[in-house]
Amino acid sequence: MGMVGGGPGAFIGEVHRKAARMDGGVELVAGAFDISPRKSKQMGREQGIDSRRAYTDYETMIERELRLPESERVDFVSITAPNNWHFPMAKAFLEAGFHVMCEKPMTMDVREALALEKVVKRSRKIFGLMHNYPGYPMVKLARDMVRQGDLGKILKIVVQYPQGWLIRPIERQGQQQASWRTDPKQSGAAGCMGDIGTHACHLAEYISGLKTQQVCADLTTFVKGRRLDDDGNCLLRFNRGAKGILHASQVSIGEENNLAIWVYGEDASIEWHQEHPNYLYVNRIDAPQEVWKRGNDYVAAKSPAADRATRLPFGHPEAFLEAFANNYCNFADTVRARMERKKADPLALDFPGVADGIRGMRFIRAVVSSSGKGAKWVRM
Amino acid sequence: MGMVGGGPGAFIGEVHRKAARMDGGVELVAGAFDISPRKSKQMGREQGIDSRRAYTDYETMIERELRLPESERVDFVSITAPNNWHFPMAKAFLEAGFHVMCEKPMTMDVREALALEKVVKRSRKIFGLMHNYPGYPMVKLARDMVRQGDLGKILKIVVQYPQGWLIRPIERQGQQQASWRTDPKQSGAAGCMGDIGTHACHLAEYISGLKTQQVCADLTTFVKGRRLDDDGNCLLRFNRGAKGILHASQVSIGEENNLAIWVYGEDASIEWHQEHPNYLYVNRIDAPQEVWKRGNDYVAAKSPAADRATRLPFGHPEAFLEAFANNYCNFADTVRARMERKKADPLALDFPGVADGIRGMRFIRAVVSSSGKGAKWVRM
Amino acid sequence: MGMVGGGPGAFIGEVHRKAARMDGGVELVAGAFDISPRKSKQMGREQGIDSRRAYTDYETMIERELRLPESERVDFVSITAPNNWHFPMAKAFLEAGFHVMCEKPMTMDVREALALEKVVKRSRKIFGLMHNYPGYPMVKLARDMVRQGDLGKILKIVVQYPQGWLIRPIERQGQQQASWRTDPKQSGAAGCMGDIGTHACHLAEYISGLKTQQVCADLTTFVKGRRLDDDGNCLLRFNRGAKGILHASQVSIGEENNLAIWVYGEDASIEWHQEHPNYLYVNRIDAPQEVWKRGNDYVAAKSPAADRATRLPFGHPEAFLEAFANNYCNFADTVRARMERKKADPLALDFPGVADGIRGMRFIRAVVSSSGKGAKWVRM
Amino acid sequence: MGMVGGGPGAFIGEVHRKAARMDGGVELVAGAFDISPRKSKQMGREQGIDSRRAYTDYETMIERELRLPESERVDFVSITAPNNWHFPMAKAFLEAGFHVMCEKPMTMDVREALALEKVVKRSRKIFGLMHNYPGYPMVKLARDMVRQGDLGKILKIVVQYPQGWLIRPIERQGQQQASWRTDPKQSGAAGCMGDIGTHACHLAEYISGLKTQQVCADLTTFVKGRRLDDDGNCLLRFNRGAKGILHASQVSIGEENNLAIWVYGEDASIEWHQEHPNYLYVNRIDAPQEVWKRGNDYVAAKSPAADRATRLPFGHPEAFLEAFANNYCNFADTVRARMERKKADPLALDFPGVADGIRGMRFIRAVVSSSGKGAKWVRM
Repeated sequence: MGMVGGGPGAFIGEVHRKAARMDGGVELVAGAFDISPRKSKQMGREQGIDSRRAYTDYETMIERELRLPESERVDFVSITAPNNWHFPMAKAFLEAGFHVMCEKPMTMDVREALALEKVVKRSRKIFGLMHNYPGYPMVKLARDMVRQGDLGKILKIVVQYPQGWLIRPIERQGQQQASWRTDPKQSGAAGCMGDIGTHACHLAEYISGLKTQQVCADLTTFVKGRRLDDDGNCLLRFNRGAKGILHASQVSIGEENNLAIWVYGEDASIEWHQEHPNYLYVNRIDAPQEVWKRGNDYVAAKSPAADRATRLPFGHPEAFLEAFANNYCNFADTVRARMERKKADPLALDFPGVADGIRGMRFIRAVVSSSGKGAKWVRM
Repeated sequence: MGMVGGGPGAFIGEVHRKAARMDGGVELVAGAFDISPRKSKQMGREQGIDSRRAYTDYETMIERELRLPESERVDFVSITAPNNWHFPMAKAFLEAGFHVMCEKPMTMDVREALALEKVVKRSRKIFGLMHNYPGYPMVKLARDMVRQGDLGKILKIVVQYPQGWLIRPIERQGQQQASWRTDPKQSGAAGCMGDIGTHACHLAEYISGLKTQQVCADLTTFVKGRRLDDDGNCLLRFNRGAKGILHASQVSIGEENNLAIWVYGEDASIEWHQEHPNYLYVNRIDAPQEVWKRGNDYVAAKSPAADRATRLPFGHPEAFLEAFANNYCNFADTVRARMERKKADPLALDFPGVADGIRGMRFIRAVVSSSGKGAKWVRM
Repeated sequence: MGMVGGGPGAFIGEVHRKAARMDGGVELVAGAFDISPRKSKQMGREQGIDSRRAYTDYETMIERELRLPESERVDFVSITAPNNWHFPMAKAFLEAGFHVMCEKPMTMDVREALALEKVVKRSRKIFGLMHNYPGYPMVKLARDMVRQGDLGKILKIVVQYPQGWLIRPIERQGQQQASWRTDPKQSGAAGCMGDIGTHACHLAEYISGLKTQQVCADLTTFVKGRRLDDDGNCLLRFNRGAKGILHASQVSIGEENNLAIWVYGEDASIEWHQEHPNYLYVNRIDAPQEVWKRGNDYVAAKSPAADRATRLPFGHPEAFLEAFANNYCNFADTVRARMERKKADPLALDFPGVADGIRGMRFIRAVVSSSGKGAKWVRM
Repeated sequence: MGMVGGGPGAFIGEVHRKAARMDGGVELVAGAFDISPRKSKQMGREQGIDSRRAYTDYETMIERELRLPESERVDFVSITAPNNWHFPMAKAFLEAGFHVMCEKPMTMDVREALALEKVVKRSRKIFGLMHNYPGYPMVKLARDMVRQGDLGKILKIVVQYPQGWLIRPIERQGQQQASWRTDPKQSGAAGCMGDIGTHACHLAEYISGLKTQQVCADLTTFVKGRRLDDDGNCLLRFNRGAKGILHASQVSIGEENNLAIWVYGEDASIEWHQEHPNYLYVNRIDAPQEVWKRGNDYVAAKSPAADRATRLPFGHPEAFLEAFANNYCNFADTVRARMERKKADPLALDFPGVADGIRGMRFIRAVVSSSGKGAKWVRM
């Protein structure tokens, strides 16, 4: 495994490394961690990487790695550079013959996303997109319950992703995470809705198997001087007649990372909270509420995907890093199968890819367009 | 106190009686409980009422009560008959000189509501509307926190009222509660949004002190053959720039009576759940979450209104009936003060009235109109 | 209904009145509310009682009520005077031919309790003891689950009753509730364990159907100068081999009225919390946890007793007062059946009585004795 | 890092590996993973270890590693073999000059524990004991609150560790985890109390800074034919007058890994639950309950130790593995400082060691002895 981005001080790059390393089957051996050569070398040292493979830019990285014998070369590359670099980097690595795991958002807009789709297809390489929340076992259980028909026809989905950390204009105080997220050049057309609204939309589609068809969105920038939305409320219409609500915020004091979803069907409903990820609440008509708890045999029996995504016994809580790592596991197993010219375990194919990235860009375009028109329905 | 409606088998009439009786200062002495004379007499007997004062219709009740000496006559009347009777009955009692406590909705539409407003003004009688949720002490505390500026400027309100009991068409099996709620003649222009969406809107305005200015609503009838909406999602815009989301449902399996609200301000936020009414969650920037618990001195110090609405010490939970009774207490104290020609305790004036009823009718009209236009913004 | 005690400022007397009044079938018509004639008259007026029936002491009350025609006379008397008066008053009323509802503790010690048992038997009157917690519907459901064998053989019971309100010596500042509870003359041999430990023990026996056979108790008085225990920890041994833990406290800061119980059987376990009384958690082997919610048809089907104890639909929370009132309902229905010479509904017989009071006194004697010996096993 | 134990199918060995690997500063380079040479080699391969360093027994491992140049040799060894091997292995490695991280329990009895203490002292090597629960950030925050006097004098501690997975005699069906835990030869004198009761005792002492002085224990073997206790209830007396309750179980259906603690002081109390580890509940007199949430600045300001133990921002839950890894971090940093002849960061010294292991053995001896005498007080 190689990495682009994730230099000193970066948040998500380190999460990628921890997640990739968790199960011991993946080793970081090269990287272009930072545009500063000094910092890239520094991170290489910290990661125990041969100093010759701590590069200063991704083009050099590609060039030099290709010179190595195939058995020494990185098998895949994780892209954790700022958003605006995702597309050119992913394209370059794919075209050079490397598999790619890309941090979300996949690209800056729909056009790039569709272009990348073509690159992926042509390259015949494996492309993973780091939407980490479907990595949670209980999310996989939820999806499998829907697939198995437990909920019956789905009527309504409520999905939310409120945070509060941007209630003050900390981007003006040089807070790094805040700065790029509120900068249209680095983040694209949407702020809050791009950063976290997309996660909410993705989760709803992942669990329900439905597609958002239309959105009616009311985005707001509550903090004066900020250049992107920091809050948004949407009505949704899915295929097969399901309705929905999606709201997200970065200015909701007291909310930390409160992604949560409720899916109501004709026969049952489910509820899941990212901050308490080991539990799935299931309601059926005229019956006690069921609390499904990660790690139990009854979960494994219902959802082999949830079982595969489980490392610890019940009661020993798993959390964010493990979910992240589950995407790496599945991605890496798929890469490994490809390299060994074997058929991948069908369960290993359960990681987001380029199609999810396109959905994300379409969602952003739709909500920004809808809100710009004063909250009119826009097709997605 | 007299009562109209609340015959054998009626749900809300009995709640009114229990609530009115709770504190011992109100006595039920007359009523027109049922259109069936036999049933009205039966309820009169059950309630220990002089059989001559168990009437068969409200006109007779008015006529006969007026013949009694003023000291024996009922001081006020509670109207718990079907919705379509609220307006004519309230009008008649007010014009006959009785104070009135009316179950919600106040009327069938905005026109009636405005007409009733005039009747109330002309009559100079006291009119209470039973929106029971503001009767909860922690709701009063929430309102007082907003009033005292703890939250700063309000940015966003999320309010929900999901239920699940109408997921099957039980109105066709003769379930009484379901039948009238799904019948436009008895319920008016909206089903779910009229029955419970109005509660959600009222609660948001009560706590925040803001007014809903525009709604963009997507109402749905999920159960085939039903004639009114059984689910609705709305975007809201309040005065002073606040945004909001309101959603309600009667077809969300697993949801019982899950009215809940989140109010986010520039300096703090609050969260309250009707099914766990003794707690108010308060969040401030970079500080531990605070769980305010009913019955404590620190609650009383912050909110005399919450204190006044409290009967039991902390840890001895209070619930729905007490909230209901708090509206009666305040209404009855106001009536009593009027009868004794005293100034009412300002805290006793804290019960919903005709203005709240007009807001409710406007809300119903706006959401039905918005949804009918395919979810366009409609002024409220 | 008549009442002894419950004068101005009394807490539990007013709770008795609200509870008795809740369902409309019981009317307070006489009382000796206070040893001060002025205060007794005042409370009589507040309660709308004929001033001739607001007595100054219970002997007079008995004498005068007996002079009234039987149809006007009070049917039963509620005793809410200080603990040391419970025995003589209950005895006097029973011997005079009145049914009695007595606030707990029933007496000051085991000797009095056994004496009262004889009085009750001789009198052939109905005696109710106000252990209010078994009045909660979900407690009745729990008991019925045990009875129906859902839990299999019971192995272990954990029951707790922590409070924190006596962490400071407020009895020295004249706080009335604190003063009598910390005074051996008014409270008996135990403080915390008498006041609330007995509730915990009673709840464990009520739900499990087991009897505590031995206790090993470590009582402590944490607040200097206090004369009775304000905290206690006990090991328990029940019949049929079940083990247990009981702990209670009045000095546990942050705890309000946190009575809670866990009963573990060979096939299932249950968990209930008084502060969230509408829910019963049920666990079975290798199955999702079940959350049973008050007011649902599936609860009624499992437990007619829980159903009978339910006034409001699901999601409309019920709480402390309703539980209290359920004891009154059952007691009053039993009294009514006796007066009408009918057989009482078997479900109406579900209220604590003299046998429960004896258990309570034995529990207090046992824990005080055990602790006095340095926490040795003492038979109960 | 080297490892003893942790062959194919072992649970805790894999947890050690994941935890040690998490932060990238520790590399597994040698091991004697299994008594089967084939299995040891297999695990070596899976872990990417030079096959010459996958040994068949720990004596060989010591001999061969010592032959390597010091710079290549393992710096420390993690012992995750069955309990009865902990002492001889730890002794051998320490005496051979290796630092040791040992899975708990440290030894089989007090005698061995005291002997090991001498070995550690003589060896001047660093010895870590894997009590993982103090690795949780919010546990460190709790300890720091106590240290800083927020709670005042501690009065009472309630600590519990119920599990339910041994309710059936699965050890007879060859379940590996159950087999050794119920076998006195491999587990020592206690079953449930040794396996998890010790964790509860350790956590209470870690947070409170108090020492358990006396225990009064009632241990039970509920499952017929089982040779060790599977449930236990204890009264505790700490130094400085604090009292306590400790209960643990492996037969409490529905309980997964429900370690939880309540510490009540004269000025405040705290509550923490292992299954929801990111929250610490703090109660002060007459103030709202405070919910402290991991990852916030206000936590870091109060507890640098909690801050150091935090990897992810608030709302991105951390869990069991991270807590485990925190012990490794601190241990490894201390080892590293020693090797670099620097003074270790005082915060790095925060990991359990030989003294904690001795306390654990004393606890087991005391509870077994107390229970054997029919629950008499035994000094610890």
